[in-house]
Amino acid sequence: MIFTSQHLLSVKDISLEAIHSLFAVAEQMRPYANREKVTRVLEGAVLGNMFFEPSTRTRVSFGSAFNLLGGEVRETTGLSNSALAKGESLYDTAQVLSGYSDVIVMRHPEPYSVEQFATGSRVPVINGGDGANEHPTQALLDLFTIKNELSSLGKDIADLRLTLLGDLKHGRTVHSLCHLLSLYKGLKVQLVSPKALALPQKYIDMLTNAGHDVQTGDNLESGLSKANVIYQTRIQEERFSTKEEADQYKGYFRLNKQIYSQHCQPDTVIMHPLPRDSRGNANELDNDLNKEPGLAIFRQTDNGVLVRMALFACILGVENQLAAYERKVNWQVGVR
Amino acid sequence: MIFTSQHLLSVKDISLEAIHSLFAVAEQMRPYANREKVTRVLEGAVLGNMFFEPSTRTRVSFGSAFNLLGGEVRETTGLSNSALAKGESLYDTAQVLSGYSDVIVMRHPEPYSVEQFATGSRVPVINGGDGANEHPTQALLDLFTIKNELSSLGKDIADLRLTLLGDLKHGRTVHSLCHLLSLYKGLKVQLVSPKALALPQKYIDMLTNAGHDVQTGDNLESGLSKANVIYQTRIQEERFSTKEEADQYKGYFRLNKQIYSQHCQPDTVIMHPLPRDSRGNANELDNDLNKEPGLAIFRQTDNGVLVRMALFACILGVENQLAAYERKVNWQVGVR
Amino acid sequence: MIFTSQHLLSVKDISLEAIHSLFAVAEQMRPYANREKVTRVLEGAVLGNMFFEPSTRTRVSFGSAFNLLGGEVRETTGLSNSALAKGESLYDTAQVLSGYSDVIVMRHPEPYSVEQFATGSRVPVINGGDGANEHPTQALLDLFTIKNELSSLGKDIADLRLTLLGDLKHGRTVHSLCHLLSLYKGLKVQLVSPKALALPQKYIDMLTNAGHDVQTGDNLESGLSKANVIYQTRIQEERFSTKEEADQYKGYFRLNKQIYSQHCQPDTVIMHPLPRDSRGNANELDNDLNKEPGLAIFRQTDNGVLVRMALFACILGVENQLAAYERKVNWQVGVR
Repeated sequence: MIFTSQHLLSVKDISLEAIHSLFAVAEQMRPYANREKVTRVLEGAVLGNMFFEPSTRTRVSFGSAFNLLGGEVRETTGLSNSALAKGESLYDTAQVLSGYSDVIVMRHPEPYSVEQFATGSRVPVINGGDGANEHPTQALLDLFTIKNELSSLGKDIADLRLTLLGDLKHGRTVHSLCHLLSLYKGLKVQLVSPKALALPQKYIDMLTNAGHDVQTGDNLESGLSKANVIYQTRIQEERFSTKEEADQYKGYFRLNKQIYSQHCQPDTVIMHPLPRDSRGNANELDNDLNKEPGLAIFRQTDNGVLVRMALFACILGVENQLAAYERKVNWQVGVR
Repeated sequence: MIFTSQHLLSVKDISLEAIHSLFAVAEQMRPYANREKVTRVLEGAVLGNMFFEPSTRTRVSFGSAFNLLGGEVRETTGLSNSALAKGESLYDTAQVLSGYSDVIVMRHPEPYSVEQFATGSRVPVINGGDGANEHPTQALLDLFTIKNELSSLGKDIADLRLTLLGDLKHGRTVHSLCHLLSLYKGLKVQLVSPKALALPQKYIDMLTNAGHDVQTGDNLESGLSKANVIYQTRIQEERFSTKEEADQYKGYFRLNKQIYSQHCQPDTVIMHPLPRDSRGNANELDNDLNKEPGLAIFRQTDNGVLVRMALFACILGVENQLAAYERKVNWQVGVR
Repeated sequence: MIFTSQHLLSVKDISLEAIHSLFAVAEQMRPYANREKVTRVLEGAVLGNMFFEPSTRTRVSFGSAFNLLGGEVRETTGLSNSALAKGESLYDTAQVLSGYSDVIVMRHPEPYSVEQFATGSRVPVINGGDGANEHPTQALLDLFTIKNELSSLGKDIADLRLTLLGDLKHGRTVHSLCHLLSLYKGLKVQLVSPKALALPQKYIDMLTNAGHDVQTGDNLESGLSKANVIYQTRIQEERFSTKEEADQYKGYFRLNKQIYSQHCQPDTVIMHPLPRDSRGNANELDNDLNKEPGLAIFRQTDNGVLVRMALFACILGVENQLAAYERKVNWQVGVR
C-alpha cells in the first residue's frame, strides 16, 4: 500500500492506484462510522492533531476519525502562544511533537509550512491545510463523494459531467480537485464563474492535457443544465476588482430550489466544501434545497470521516486488521 | 426510559418519572465516579463536547463523565473562529458535527440556539447552557443534590424547606430549578432577595400553582432560620438600578460562619451554583464556612458528574449494561 | 515508593532515593514510548491537564504520557475565561476539578499558585510550571537526560563535567536543576554567563555546599573545552541593563558547528530546554549542529515523555503493573 508510513503533503503525491486503494478502505470504514460495529484497531495509538490555524470542523473530523479507529487524540488549536511564535523552526517543532505521537495532522496558515514541518518529523505527517496552498484530504473526500454519488445513481466516474461553479480563481479545494481529476481521462468538466474569478490557466491546461472535455463560461443556466454533479464554491464580493463587476454578478451564482428545479436535470448532485453562508444576502446555496435528495453537502462531510479513517489506517498499515479488532455496538445509535 | 435517543434541551421536557429514573441511574454511577470500580460501557463511543461559549468547569464535567463511562471526547471551545462566525446556520453546523459523534453537548451564548441546533442534528443533543435561557443539567444536579443532602439527614424531598437567596431575578439556575420543583407538591420555598432582584412573577406563580408554600421577603435572618436547604446565588452590584439601592444591600446577603452559626439550624445545607467570588469584597459565601459539614457546594459539583454520567447512559440506552462492562480499579485512588 | 498519591509541587520535595526510583521506572517506559509494545495500565483513569497558561509542548507531553499509559485526558488552555478570572479561589477551583479526574497537572502564571491549588485538591497534583517559580518535571527530565547521555558514553553521573551556559540569572530550569544537582556530591560545574546574567548567589552556595567543584566565568571557550555536558539557555538582549553591555556579548554565547568542533571535546553533549530561536539573529544553537551526535535536545524532549509516564505511574501506584496490561503494537511504527 503506497501510503504506509509516508507523509501525505500534497495531492501531487497521490497516484490513481493509491486513490483506488484508499477509497476501497474508506468503503470498509462505513459500518464503523455508521455505528453498525466498532473497531479498536488503533487502541493505544496517539494522533497529534496540530492545528496552528483554527478550523473546528476539519480538526474534529480528523480527531473523530482517529477515535473511531480506537486511538487517542492530543491536539492544539491556534498559533499565538506556541513556540513557533517565539522563533522556533518548523523543523524543531516537528522533532519535538513527533516524539509525542504516532502520526501528526498539521494545519498551518503558511503555504508549504507542512512540507517543511515534515522534514523534522519522525512520524508520518498529514497536511490538514497549509494556507492558500493545499488541503489534500478535502480534495480526496470531494473525489470520493463524486464517485459515490455517481455510483448511487448507477453511474461511474467515466460518466461524470462536472460543473465547477463560483469563485474558481481562489478556492484551493477546486484547484486540488483539478489535480486529482487530471489522473482520470475523458471526463466532461464545465467551468462556470465570473470572468474575474475564472480558473487559472494552469489548471485549465492540467484538465485539458488529461484529455478532459473542458468548457468555460459565465452562464449559470447552461452550466447547470448539462451537469450531473455541481461543485459550488462561495463568491465573495470583495474578490472583484470593481464594484460594478461585483454588482453585475450579484446573486447570479446563487443556487436555490427554483433555479435547481428549472435548470438542472433530475438527481443532479450538489456539492460544496462548506461552510455555506446561510445569511439572507449570501451568494450561496439556499436552505430551501435542504430536502433535495441531490443535495450531497452533508454526505460530503460524512465522507470526510471515512476518507480520514482510511488514510490513518493505510498510513499506519492496519487496513487489513479492522475486523480483527471488531466489537459490537452496545449503545443505541441515532438516525445516521 | 424516556431519555433514550432524545435531546435534552429544556427542563420543561422532563417529567417527574424521567427524573426519578435518571436519579436512580445517577446513584448507580457513584462507585464508578468514586473509583471503587471502572465501567467501559461506552468504549468506542464519541462525545462532541461543543462549547461555543467557554465554560471550563461545565465542559470538563461533561467530558469527564463521558470518559468515566469509557467513551472518547472531541471538543471545541469558543465561537470566534468557528464557521458559525462566517454565517453558517446552526442547522448546518449540527448536520456536520453530528456526523462526527454519537451524542453532542452544546453550549452557546444565544438563547434558544441549542434548540435550533438540535433540528439539524442526527444524534441526541444535550443543552449545556444557551445564554440567559437554560442550563438544564445544572438544574438536574441541583435537584439531585437537594434530594441527596436531605436523604443523608434522614429526610425526604417532602421535608424540604428551601431558601433561595440572592439575585433571584437574573439567575437562570434558579429559574430552571423552579421548573423542576414545580413537578413536586407542597414544598416550603422562601424567596429572599433585594426587592430589585426578586424572582420574576411567572416563577412565583409556577411554584404557587404547584401547591408549594411560597414566602417572599428581603430579610436574611428569617430566610435562614426556617430553611433546611439554602441555595445562594451571587449578587452583583451593577444589577441594581441605583447606587443607593446597591449600597443599601451591600454585604447584606453575604453568608459567613458567624451568620450561619447564629441564624441557621444545625445541619442546614448550603448550596451555590459556583463559581463563588472569594475576593475580600465579594457578596458571597465566605471561606470560613469551608469546614462546615453543611457546606454542600463541592458535593454539588461532584454530583454533576453523576447526573451527567446518568444522562449519557440513559440517552444512549446503556444504563442497564454498566456492570457488564465493569473492571477493577488497579491504580491508587486519592481521597474522594 | 515515595511519590504514591502525593503531590509533586517542587524539586525541593524530591529525595535522591525518589529520583532513583523514578528514573528506574522511566527506563521501563522506554519500550512503550518507542512503540515496541503498548501498556494499558491506566485504562479508565482520567488526567486533568489544566494549563491556565498556554504551553503547547509541555501540555502535549503530559497528555501523551498519560495516553501512552492507557488513560484519558481532559484539559484546558488559558486563563482568560475561567472561573479563576471571576474571583474564584484556587482552593475552590481545585475542589471542583479534583472531582473530575484521578490526577491533575496544573500550570499557572502565578508563582506558588500550584501549591495553593494543591491545598484544595482531593487528588494528586503535579506542578506543570508556576510562573517564575518552578517547573519540576523539566528539572527531572534534564537530570534524567544528563544521566542517560553520560551512560551512553560509558560514564556515570560522578563523571559529570557540566557547563551551564547563557542566562543563568532568570532561567527557572537552571535553578531547578541546581536543586537536583545539589543532591549529589563532588560534581564539576562551570557557570558561564555574562556578568549581568550570572547565577544568583544562593544557587552557587547550594552547589558549593553540596561539595561540587564550581567554577564561574564569562569565557565561552574555556567553558566549552572542559565540559562533557553543556546546558545552554537563551540570552535575551533586553535582559541587560545597558545596550552597551548587550552589544558587548552580542553573539558571544552562540553555539554553532564551527565553535563546537573547535572548542569542545568529541562527544560533548549539548542540551537546551527549548524552544530555541532559529531566526537568523538569535543568540542560540545553530541549525548546523542538527546532525551532531552530541546534540541531545530532541532526546531531551523525548525523555520528558518517559519521566512524565514514570511520574504518573509512581503517583498512581501502578509502576509494577505495566507488564500485566501489556499488548503488542499492531500498527507500523515511524522512525523513532
